[in-house]
Amino acid sequence: MQEIKKYVEDNKQRFLDELFELLRFPSVSADPKYKADVLKTADFVAAKLQEAGADKVEICQTAGYPIIYGEKIIDPSLPTVLVYGHYDVQPADPVELWDTPPFEPTIRDGKIYARGACDDKGQFYMHVKAFELMMKTGTLACNVKFMIEGEEEVGSSNLGVFVKANAEKLKADVVLISDTSMISMENPSIETGLRGLAYMEVEVTGPNRDLHSGVYGGAVANPITILCKMIASLHDENNHIVIPEFYDRVVELTPAEKEALNSAPFDLDEYKKDLNIQAEWGEKGYSTLERTGTRPTLEVNGIWGGYIGEGAKTVLPSKANAKISMRLVPHQNSEEISAIFQKHFESIAPEFVKVKVTAHHGGEPVVTPTDSIAYRAAEKAIFDSFGKNPIPTRGGGSIPIVALFEDVLGIKSVLLGFGLDSDALHSPNEKYDIFNYYKGIETLPLFHKYFAELSK
Amino acid sequence: MQEIKKYVEDNKQRFLDELFELLRFPSVSADPKYKADVLKTADFVAAKLQEAGADKVEICQTAGYPIIYGEKIIDPSLPTVLVYGHYDVQPADPVELWDTPPFEPTIRDGKIYARGACDDKGQFYMHVKAFELMMKTGTLACNVKFMIEGEEEVGSSNLGVFVKANAEKLKADVVLISDTSMISMENPSIETGLRGLAYMEVEVTGPNRDLHSGVYGGAVANPITILCKMIASLHDENNHIVIPEFYDRVVELTPAEKEALNSAPFDLDEYKKDLNIQAEWGEKGYSTLERTGTRPTLEVNGIWGGYIGEGAKTVLPSKANAKISMRLVPHQNSEEISAIFQKHFESIAPEFVKVKVTAHHGGEPVVTPTDSIAYRAAEKAIFDSFGKNPIPTRGGGSIPIVALFEDVLGIKSVLLGFGLDSDALHSPNEKYDIFNYYKGIETLPLFHKYFAELSK
Repeated sequence: MQEIKKYVEDNKQRFLDELFELLRFPSVSADPKYKADVLKTADFVAAKLQEAGADKVEICQTAGYPIIYGEKIIDPSLPTVLVYGHYDVQPADPVELWDTPPFEPTIRDGKIYARGACDDKGQFYMHVKAFELMMKTGTLACNVKFMIEGEEEVGSSNLGVFVKANAEKLKADVVLISDTSMISMENPSIETGLRGLAYMEVEVTGPNRDLHSGVYGGAVANPITILCKMIASLHDENNHIVIPEFYDRVVELTPAEKEALNSAPFDLDEYKKDLNIQAEWGEKGYSTLERTGTRPTLEVNGIWGGYIGEGAKTVLPSKANAKISMRLVPHQNSEEISAIFQKHFESIAPEFVKVKVTAHHGGEPVVTPTDSIAYRAAEKAIFDSFGKNPIPTRGGGSIPIVALFEDVLGIKSVLLGFGLDSDALHSPNEKYDIFNYYKGIETLPLFHKYFAELSK
Repeated sequence: MQEIKKYVEDNKQRFLDELFELLRFPSVSADPKYKADVLKTADFVAAKLQEAGADKVEICQTAGYPIIYGEKIIDPSLPTVLVYGHYDVQPADPVELWDTPPFEPTIRDGKIYARGACDDKGQFYMHVKAFELMMKTGTLACNVKFMIEGEEEVGSSNLGVFVKANAEKLKADVVLISDTSMISMENPSIETGLRGLAYMEVEVTGPNRDLHSGVYGGAVANPITILCKMIASLHDENNHIVIPEFYDRVVELTPAEKEALNSAPFDLDEYKKDLNIQAEWGEKGYSTLERTGTRPTLEVNGIWGGYIGEGAKTVLPSKANAKISMRLVPHQNSEEISAIFQKHFESIAPEFVKVKVTAHHGGEPVVTPTDSIAYRAAEKAIFDSFGKNPIPTRGGGSIPIVALFEDVLGIKSVLLGFGLDSDALHSPNEKYDIFNYYKGIETLPLFHKYFAELSK
């Protein structure tokens, strides 16, 4: 432990400088105009893995953005840890709401502000530096494989193909991922479940052209009004989702699970204060932690139609569009839910309009075991560096790759994340605490140490 | 009549070239970035009035865009016609839906395609050319005053001040306006009523920042979903507007009025075919002509919130916005309705969100008399040039200035428009038939002739 702390101490500034370099690449995978930047980011990651001491570093081409692979096999008889992360980031907009430029990392009271600071550049890069540390201090206890992709924020659409094609090369005993949050540094936690995702786009078409709202208004269905009515109908007065078959596969938590989940430290008033909301919202009969961790949800991620510029335009538009995504819980399947949604949304379209429903990427929900060697190794590592055992929690987000690994490679994952819910993932002013960054670099070698020991 | 036709025939090409020149100015009053172009348009109009033979041509400055004035007083004892029009146009977006550039007028099978072709450049310029014709052929029968403004599409916000300040200068016996439509060239008609307008903008704010829809989805109210529910609630299942007091001042048509209105030639199947819609929509118990001409309506003109770019972003946005306008009928008042809307919209906002409601411009509804000398002169003019009497109709659009004239100057208007509902006003591919343009130039001198005769 001392040796680890010393190495981190001695290299503090360099570790930070390198992360800043990584954060300056606007590697937005959703927007084609950043293509060159995403590719540069991939090169950077490969170079850093090489420097850290990885062998067989490779920029693996895919139908989309490349996947960076690297490995260090010290002894085939030792267990192997496969580290997964992603170097792409969410779009930065609305850019005007950032206090400092999203791709110019800035430190304010101990926090690094930048798009990707926490999700996931700051977190996967801890593994690169922890790996360097173990190499330089000769403490590497397991074989290590890295797989850092560039399409997580757009659904990892090409990762499945890659994993299937490279099953042998990716053989490992555990997948280690830092792309999740802890309750707090005082209450370290490990997410043991993730929700799946089905992401849809809908288009409602009324008249074949934009119309003058004075000449036609009141006599022709307005696609915005119709879309609003359709969206409004997707939740009932108790905020249950009103889509036939949607809940069919959803399993209620046992009283014991409910209790364990709700025993996690959570302050609703703090939560509301942080978001500046008068009242929380959600499915009747469930707590906030249950709503985000264990229940499927439906959110409108975007809506647009008609005139959205300055001033006033009296138009009755031809089209209205929305992006709608659903978070899925264990046993739900993204393709099935996408089909169920499409069928329902088309069925509620009134005769006045035409509706087009298309599916974006999806991902499957997962629950990770808390009785595995890997989980216990993570527990011990956190106990050593935080002084207390982690609380198992259920995360609301989705990391489709986790389910993919189980299906294709038969490997379970450990979600050893060091972020915080307040890190503003996917929002303006995303941040990552410098403390958490270093804490992660210190904790990860301990995971490798205990994973090797417990695997004996 | 022969003299008129000959003059038009001899100057056909020039009349068209000048209109094209006028249409090439992108005089979009709603968008500040076109300011210079709007001002250039004002200069052009002034110059053309001068050339046509107007005296005292003046570019009258206002707090906004200038108003062009010009006059020809041939004999104070003769009646005076005040011609009103506007040289500003609606925004051209969505520009990608135009078949040819909105500000590069193009002729396709006898129609001029350009923003403003019909609304209102093509129509007010007919008056400039008709005036030139009467001057050159020495047939001017009335005194003429021109007032062409540049802010009609943004609510004529500075015209009221100008009119009040220049009441004496603007003294006239009738206001003649060509900014409306006819049923068809086979069924000439004159609009005898116009709806008023109240235009609102609403903003719904949920959490204080955009959130990750996985981490917070299901536990925090989504402002898009809430806005959709609020908008959905504004119409009931019969498409009546559900805002307390909204209909209080609305007067039902008498059976006779209903019959006259519905006797106008109208083919619902043609209407639906033209718009490519399966079914018409609207307030239960009223025909399409009644809905657009005689009933107040509420339309969402624009909506936006969350991520509306390429691909997928899993965001639960902080804000959602909409532009909502209401068309008003006689006895309703735009300020009163704006207040009623604001009160109601704020009252239906759930505790999860904050709502901000602001009012854009408004305008008052009007009904023009069908028994006045001016209306009869218009009737006779149309009979001469179309071979049949015009059908009185109720227009769904709004020209706030008409009510303003009645209030401030005590002058009634005649809405002698030559457009067609199919001209795609406020839409991509706005057009105006060359036939209608020339027909208007031929018909207007006849109005002046008969107005002078009937006024004796």
